[in-house]
Amino acid sequence: MSTESASSKVVPVAWSDGTVHILDQTLLPFEEVVLECRSIEDIGDAIGRLAVRGAPALGVAAGYGMALAADLSRAATVKALHRDLRLAGRYLVGTRPTAVNISWAVERVLAAVVGEDVEAARVSVLAEAMDIETEDRASCDAIGRFGAELVPQKASILTHCNTGHLCTAGIGTAQGVIETAHREGKRIHVWVDETRPLLQGARLTAWELRRLGIPMTLVVDGAAASLMSAGKVDLVITGADRIASNGDCANKIGTYGLAALARVHKIPFYVAAPLSTLDPAMSDGSGMAIEQRDPSEVVAPRGVPFAQWETAAANPAFDVTPGTLIAGIITEMGVAGPPFRQSLRRLAKEGEGT
Amino acid sequence: MSTESASSKVVPVAWSDGTVHILDQTLLPFEEVVLECRSIEDIGDAIGRLAVRGAPALGVAAGYGMALAADLSRAATVKALHRDLRLAGRYLVGTRPTAVNISWAVERVLAAVVGEDVEAARVSVLAEAMDIETEDRASCDAIGRFGAELVPQKASILTHCNTGHLCTAGIGTAQGVIETAHREGKRIHVWVDETRPLLQGARLTAWELRRLGIPMTLVVDGAAASLMSAGKVDLVITGADRIASNGDCANKIGTYGLAALARVHKIPFYVAAPLSTLDPAMSDGSGMAIEQRDPSEVVAPRGVPFAQWETAAANPAFDVTPGTLIAGIITEMGVAGPPFRQSLRRLAKEGEGT
Repeated sequence: MSTESASSKVVPVAWSDGTVHILDQTLLPFEEVVLECRSIEDIGDAIGRLAVRGAPALGVAAGYGMALAADLSRAATVKALHRDLRLAGRYLVGTRPTAVNISWAVERVLAAVVGEDVEAARVSVLAEAMDIETEDRASCDAIGRFGAELVPQKASILTHCNTGHLCTAGIGTAQGVIETAHREGKRIHVWVDETRPLLQGARLTAWELRRLGIPMTLVVDGAAASLMSAGKVDLVITGADRIASNGDCANKIGTYGLAALARVHKIPFYVAAPLSTLDPAMSDGSGMAIEQRDPSEVVAPRGVPFAQWETAAANPAFDVTPGTLIAGIITEMGVAGPPFRQSLRRLAKEGEGT
Repeated sequence: MSTESASSKVVPVAWSDGTVHILDQTLLPFEEVVLECRSIEDIGDAIGRLAVRGAPALGVAAGYGMALAADLSRAATVKALHRDLRLAGRYLVGTRPTAVNISWAVERVLAAVVGEDVEAARVSVLAEAMDIETEDRASCDAIGRFGAELVPQKASILTHCNTGHLCTAGIGTAQGVIETAHREGKRIHVWVDETRPLLQGARLTAWELRRLGIPMTLVVDGAAASLMSAGKVDLVITGADRIASNGDCANKIGTYGLAALARVHKIPFYVAAPLSTLDPAMSDGSGMAIEQRDPSEVVAPRGVPFAQWETAAANPAFDVTPGTLIAGIITEMGVAGPPFRQSLRRLAKEGEGT
């Protein structure tokens, strides 16, 4: 694996001539380094240490990882190629077992291994990986268009975590709505929550919005409530990691507090996410397991001790926002409104038809 | 000014044989260094760079600063001593103009410059400074006793910022309530908000509670809401920097959000503060000016960049919690309940009578 300096466009994952290029997000915003992955292990390493993150971007990375595996395979038959790809897929899924988009992309590529000979099958694998990327880009654009209709002129928008170019193949989800509203000339301003503990807001969203020329101001997470009470927030918009069929959403820790405070201040709270985030098997959010991450992320962010190392700390990575606090869930098929059980089912059905 | 290693007891300011000892809070919790201040400038420096902080502790530091000035004065008459002390007082007030406790302590000591000769006047000055310390310690004890009555057995208590030994002459305000409940055998547990941007929770409160042997868990500020919704918080208690006569409280940024979330989750939210924090001239919190501090505290806490240096950031130091969200204000004269305009006035009147 070698590295090169990044171009000005933010592309988290790209395929080029048998190499998967991954922008190393762990070094952002201070260094822009693109990892040139030429083996499955290179890609697995990048996924495992969060050099690439964000559900849709992980799907794209896994898809191209499979294309790379097909490229590297010495199989003489389609059947042997399929076996090699199953092994590669198993390895990729194991690098981050909770990321459903990886297994989704792996399964999708495996189902596409067709062709009269190995070379034709390789082409079909790469085509499928490219489809995953293209479809995600189109999905972001659609979310952006539907969401921007909800953004008033001169709106001040509060957002949390990172939901932009870095975690998708396109303009992002919640941040895609922000970018689209900005491009439509709505003269918006964005309050960016720093998003402790991992600081995706300070490190990634602030960096992306500055590159895009979108007016923004970084704040600590605890400042959101007073901004709302001072009338400085017109709407809140975040992404989602998982959506239950009643609209309950799991997302980065701190999201639920924002939704509850938005309700107190009568400010609309929106979620933007592709329909692939919807888990129809999950009736509501009560069963969503909350990942407890390493306390060192709280005690010593970026390796710098904020408290004594021995300090007991809890580090829940996500919280669950009840659908009852959400004004709308913005998907690539349109905006679902409450009650979500009906509206999400309808949009999902329409999505299947396309 | 020389330094020495600290004893195991947490004492932010102490007087001993013509020296004012100040525990340097900027180095906590990683180094415990006591500054030995032997000149007014030593004390002014310590106050100016926040080596000592917290309203009551600043009053104690200013009182002993005046005692030191009296010690160092070469005045031959009481009148000349008074003039030297006025100059010293003006300098001390200028080191942190917004800290009302400094000017309050200076005025109080100046009014106590009495005696037949300079030596007697010096003694009266030191006695007044010691009274300020003793009274604050007693005030903390009383707040602790009154507050602990509100703490149920096995309560999980969420707190914000630092309100303990480090910012008073005693056990503290909100943290004094926590310590008293702990000593009464209530088997409490404390959730400590890290309190971005300056991390007083992570650096100072976590350190104090660990030394006191009080079970605690550090969390990022954004985790409070999900702890509440999971039923893991029985009450919230914070300090206050300024209290209006209707009970509106200015306190560290993030406090108002906690109070609003506590109301949503039907969890009592208490404020603990001495009656000196009450500003009877202020009818409500709408006129409270919110100090906007340097954005670098958000962008690069403790000198470590979290975002690009050029990132625009807002850094309001305080927010205002409406009295309507507060279940009780715990003072050294008892607990004021809503409506606060009446209850606070009554307690203040009783306080004047003591």
